[in-house]
Amino acid sequence: MSITLQGLVDRFGGQLVGDGSVTVSHFAPLDSADGDSITFLTNPKFKNLVATCQAAALIISPRDNQAVGDQFKGQRIVAPNPYAYFAHAAQLFQSMKAVPPEPGIHPSACIDPTAKIGEGVTIGPFVTIEAGAEIGDRCHIEAGCFIGRGAKVGADCHFFPRVVFMYECEIGERSVLRPGAVIGCEGFGFANEGGVWVKIPQTGRVIIGNDVQIGANTTVDRGALADTVVENGVKLDNQIQIGHNCHIGENSAMAGCVGVAGSATFGKNCTVGGAAMIGGHLTIADGVHVTASSVVQSSIEKRGVYSGFYPLAPHREWEKSAVLVRRLGSMRDKIRELEKAIQTLSGKEK
Amino acid sequence: MSITLQGLVDRFGGQLVGDGSVTVSHFAPLDSADGDSITFLTNPKFKNLVATCQAAALIISPRDNQAVGDQFKGQRIVAPNPYAYFAHAAQLFQSMKAVPPEPGIHPSACIDPTAKIGEGVTIGPFVTIEAGAEIGDRCHIEAGCFIGRGAKVGADCHFFPRVVFMYECEIGERSVLRPGAVIGCEGFGFANEGGVWVKIPQTGRVIIGNDVQIGANTTVDRGALADTVVENGVKLDNQIQIGHNCHIGENSAMAGCVGVAGSATFGKNCTVGGAAMIGGHLTIADGVHVTASSVVQSSIEKRGVYSGFYPLAPHREWEKSAVLVRRLGSMRDKIRELEKAIQTLSGKEK
Amino acid sequence: MSITLQGLVDRFGGQLVGDGSVTVSHFAPLDSADGDSITFLTNPKFKNLVATCQAAALIISPRDNQAVGDQFKGQRIVAPNPYAYFAHAAQLFQSMKAVPPEPGIHPSACIDPTAKIGEGVTIGPFVTIEAGAEIGDRCHIEAGCFIGRGAKVGADCHFFPRVVFMYECEIGERSVLRPGAVIGCEGFGFANEGGVWVKIPQTGRVIIGNDVQIGANTTVDRGALADTVVENGVKLDNQIQIGHNCHIGENSAMAGCVGVAGSATFGKNCTVGGAAMIGGHLTIADGVHVTASSVVQSSIEKRGVYSGFYPLAPHREWEKSAVLVRRLGSMRDKIRELEKAIQTLSGKEK
Repeated sequence: MSITLQGLVDRFGGQLVGDGSVTVSHFAPLDSADGDSITFLTNPKFKNLVATCQAAALIISPRDNQAVGDQFKGQRIVAPNPYAYFAHAAQLFQSMKAVPPEPGIHPSACIDPTAKIGEGVTIGPFVTIEAGAEIGDRCHIEAGCFIGRGAKVGADCHFFPRVVFMYECEIGERSVLRPGAVIGCEGFGFANEGGVWVKIPQTGRVIIGNDVQIGANTTVDRGALADTVVENGVKLDNQIQIGHNCHIGENSAMAGCVGVAGSATFGKNCTVGGAAMIGGHLTIADGVHVTASSVVQSSIEKRGVYSGFYPLAPHREWEKSAVLVRRLGSMRDKIRELEKAIQTLSGKEK
Repeated sequence: MSITLQGLVDRFGGQLVGDGSVTVSHFAPLDSADGDSITFLTNPKFKNLVATCQAAALIISPRDNQAVGDQFKGQRIVAPNPYAYFAHAAQLFQSMKAVPPEPGIHPSACIDPTAKIGEGVTIGPFVTIEAGAEIGDRCHIEAGCFIGRGAKVGADCHFFPRVVFMYECEIGERSVLRPGAVIGCEGFGFANEGGVWVKIPQTGRVIIGNDVQIGANTTVDRGALADTVVENGVKLDNQIQIGHNCHIGENSAMAGCVGVAGSATFGKNCTVGGAAMIGGHLTIADGVHVTASSVVQSSIEKRGVYSGFYPLAPHREWEKSAVLVRRLGSMRDKIRELEKAIQTLSGKEK
Repeated sequence: MSITLQGLVDRFGGQLVGDGSVTVSHFAPLDSADGDSITFLTNPKFKNLVATCQAAALIISPRDNQAVGDQFKGQRIVAPNPYAYFAHAAQLFQSMKAVPPEPGIHPSACIDPTAKIGEGVTIGPFVTIEAGAEIGDRCHIEAGCFIGRGAKVGADCHFFPRVVFMYECEIGERSVLRPGAVIGCEGFGFANEGGVWVKIPQTGRVIIGNDVQIGANTTVDRGALADTVVENGVKLDNQIQIGHNCHIGENSAMAGCVGVAGSATFGKNCTVGGAAMIGGHLTIADGVHVTASSVVQSSIEKRGVYSGFYPLAPHREWEKSAVLVRRLGSMRDKIRELEKAIQTLSGKEK
């Protein structure tokens, strides 16, 4: 299956430079593309590959087009955001090739008679759906998923194999849960009474919006008294832990292995790099970007980029600097002493 | 369903100030409580909310009661640990509302005929229980759980969906395993022989005590030669990794994303903050508290609070300080030079 | 079941000092071994236990044998790498005791008629195998595993319960996936278009070699355009995240909780300590060892040991040093001022 460049421009816009009847069938990287493929330029350090690139077509920004467009042998689509253009077009290619799942409920699935299953739903083998749960139209629930009592799943959601979606939780439309994700587990709440931990029942839910994606083996805990909320358009990568009562604002995204402790509130359009850790009861403003592996232990009120991790070094060098980090106090004291000594010396001379 | 304040005091103690016939049906936060609800004051910074709080009743410490008790319009229960009181009372409310699972084995479950299943046990769909395993009375084993051959599960345990509890492992009474937890996986033991890794069989087990809670997608590896041990009352949050041969002491608690390398030994009543990492072959004394995101690479012999993570800063500021961390050696050398120079100068002057 | 020392030496080499007809039945640690057991000395700090050790036999290096071999009462096997010797011999003991799984397909398994299942394969309850998947001879696929359409599994692989192995991915021979591992999840790729994240289809696969081991709840994402590759002999512990398009070189090993961002390339024979984090688009040379909890944010071109984590301290001490880390710039400025002041003073004196 393939599509003409004119077909792409009709769908996704952009200015065509060249022959719109040329067809392409897939995307390929600049340096390994062949004559059936389309490619894109986003990283300026790859500009030098344009002249020798064998792709039939290139998606390029107006600025890069001015700079190096002429060097490309094939057709060009000039668009302001080539990476987003690539994303849309690649989704189109994928949808042309994909075989949509056949609607129907696998005979092995265990579905409570009080559950409501929408139109055109596909349910795989060994799926459990408990009493009162609701599954929206055209959902695809793959093998081994568990959906607890009273849970609500909006239309066009895709649960990959082995998702656990616990009782009374809700998720909007077009959202995706990847394999092994656990939504609505009881949060980690205990009162200490003379050394013994007394469990605090977690009576809130997890409420997830539309167009959310949650990665493999990621866990989102249900709230203690109130709900845990994940707003529309949020993207969470694999192996992330979101504690009880967190609130993740619209279109925020977090990379793999991030941990967010309980009751943290994120604004909109934030990003969190891989393995960063966010403390509990914090408020993070809109548009905050935390770099990978950083530790956030107090609220951030101003948009911007924040970092905090120890720089890597050859081990012996690290050993020396790490020892000195612990002696920073005495270094500062020594500097103060020197300062005084110099003042004294200077005084003497006057 | 609701309960009178006198009913709460009869069960859980505390000194009632006001009308014991007033009824409450649920807990709510201080600032959103209504006339059917009961609330509690633990965080001193919320004292100012007491005067306007609409709850029917307030659980309050003797000290806070003296300070602000008079300002509250409703009834009061004065108790030394309001947070633990809340935990106990909330458990009572939950048990009044909860529909207990109906005992019985789902017809789809695959249970070896040599497994011993106790009285009043509930087993969900698609559960696998292998040869010789023993399930104690009143256990609740939810959908998709796997219990390996010869494993022993004590009475009143609750395994949430999709728990894996491997062969020959043991768990005591009233313990809870949350969705996706994996107990008894073979530990990561390899000998290096000329660059190739040779697997070391992991022949120990995991032995877990009573009243233990283990979070979603947490993994606890079986021992190599000896057993991995998790003592009574331990609470582990989600996405924790406990390596082979670890020993976690009574009533210790760890927050999400913590990693504990092999053969680490924890004392009693320790706490580990989220994403902290504990090296292998270490011994941690009773009552040690490791703050979130800290890295522990040597044994800790004295109770107390320990920390070690890089402070967060705006990215540009961090870049500057991170560079200087690597130059600490030359800063110290420079300070020494200055010291000598001053000594020389001082000497000259004498 | 037991074996003679001569039997061990015939199989695994080494020089026997003593009576080869003595039999041993299991391994035990130096300090708790009894007369039926064999033990080994690898850690020099345990040399003092040799004299009192009750084991029937001891595996010891030539060097340690010269130093303390005489003090041991039992028989000795002198071999250059006692730890690898132990690994091989322990595998033999285990194989003597293990009951091999009975080949056959559990009647509850859901296997597409177009899937190809090899000879002598064991498939447990509630396993799903989709269209066109291929399972090699003698594979053991445990309860609840999911193998997607077109996936290829080589001979003699062992998938523990609840593994997810997604569509079109491939794994070689004798490889092991532990419970809850997710291979071939779609990677985390989104283009940002005016604040909204547009999904980039992940059309690559995961290609895994021979003799690979992947731990419990570990996730390896499929590539975006190209494949994610895990070469022969790689060992990954539990709860590791490997991003899309990564390439992990032969015989490299990673401990628990490691995160590797997308498009990172590892050489051969690398090791990564627990919870270390590797940034995206980096290249790591052969033979690089990253210590536990370190953060790698740029490529490493030279073999060696690298570290980077904040040193632990009692909390109050840490608070002081952490504040000073953020003031390193002003400390350096102050040192420069002092330098100038001293130069001025020195100059005046001349």
